[in-house]
Amino acid sequence: MSELERTSRSQPMRHSERGSFDRETVNAILDAALLCHVGYALDGAPLVTPTLFWRDGERVFWHGSAASRALQTQAGCKVCLTVSLLDGIVLSRSAFNHSVNYRSVMLFGTARSVNDSGEKLLVLEKLMERIARGRWGEVRQPTESELKATSVLWMDIREGAAKIRAIPVGDEPADRDQSVWAGVVPIMTSLGEPEPAAGLASDIEMPDYLSKIRLS
Amino acid sequence: MSELERTSRSQPMRHSERGSFDRETVNAILDAALLCHVGYALDGAPLVTPTLFWRDGERVFWHGSAASRALQTQAGCKVCLTVSLLDGIVLSRSAFNHSVNYRSVMLFGTARSVNDSGEKLLVLEKLMERIARGRWGEVRQPTESELKATSVLWMDIREGAAKIRAIPVGDEPADRDQSVWAGVVPIMTSLGEPEPAAGLASDIEMPDYLSKIRLS
Repeated sequence: MSELERTSRSQPMRHSERGSFDRETVNAILDAALLCHVGYALDGAPLVTPTLFWRDGERVFWHGSAASRALQTQAGCKVCLTVSLLDGIVLSRSAFNHSVNYRSVMLFGTARSVNDSGEKLLVLEKLMERIARGRWGEVRQPTESELKATSVLWMDIREGAAKIRAIPVGDEPADRDQSVWAGVVPIMTSLGEPEPAAGLASDIEMPDYLSKIRLS
Repeated sequence: MSELERTSRSQPMRHSERGSFDRETVNAILDAALLCHVGYALDGAPLVTPTLFWRDGERVFWHGSAASRALQTQAGCKVCLTVSLLDGIVLSRSAFNHSVNYRSVMLFGTARSVNDSGEKLLVLEKLMERIARGRWGEVRQPTESELKATSVLWMDIREGAAKIRAIPVGDEPADRDQSVWAGVVPIMTSLGEPEPAAGLASDIEMPDYLSKIRLS
């Protein structure tokens, strides 16, 4: 296993993997992604909800409508929050050795609600600043009823696993003469040209932060 | 709610949503994505594993090492397979009305193993053809022991939900005079320049299918 193909986890889950929970690696992956998948169980049946998330120090946060059944169910319950970034397709000379390059984190813990309005406002500001730094001061602030209509959940970054594959094709020596293209096709996520809202006043310029949204 | 913001599901999960399980919409989203997140429960605790997947008719498939604890646990158990594509960031004039454009599918069912070697070979060929049409005939085929080392799971596309947001900014009329940029920043996934493996024979040309990998 290459130095770049590494797994770090605080609890053993697959016996073929090794490593420890490396917080720096975990944070780097969490900070690169916008989307996570939150898993929870409802009467023993698993559910996986995709949602935006953001990190603040030792915690990750996610939010949604207070009417959301998913968020209502998750609060106070065990969850698994998984973040994955697909970085490339690894095409080897044998069918078996095809793979993908990726970065992923699984976090395990209990989801908690942010109940205090003032605290909710502060953590929602962090979400906005994660995406568009400087925008929070420009937009119309949430009213008390908008805050009530928004649920925010969080969990500690304490137990989990980071997993990365970032290496080239791994062909068996015996396969290297196979007459087929082999290599890695990178996958990239990027921002398109911003589309101004209908009716946007013509004197409003496009803010710099739009081109700086961190996606991967 | 616009015609483009629609939810279709076979079982009610959030009372604020509507619609039916529209198979065409579901299939289009499944066929656009490479990565899914499979949720399952282990002693009541939720786990979410990111993995490649592919659709063949009325079923979705995913695979991995036969030594994988995740796949061993999922076989025969209830799973939730979720696919999500993040299409854009919706920046409105109020903090509250910010959103994202996305397409997602949640599928519910029981994971089953492909046990027969011949069948396994056929479904693995479908994975390869999903990514790189024509490549299966070019690469070295799996040996019997490679097939044994590979677990393939599948589930029926029968119960689930598709959810899409693909509309512009939705600002309250009272917010339209707020002096801030508003609009949608599209998010795109694309292929980078293929990186040939070290030692690739110089007479092997880059195949056409590399530029045609469907990512979104």
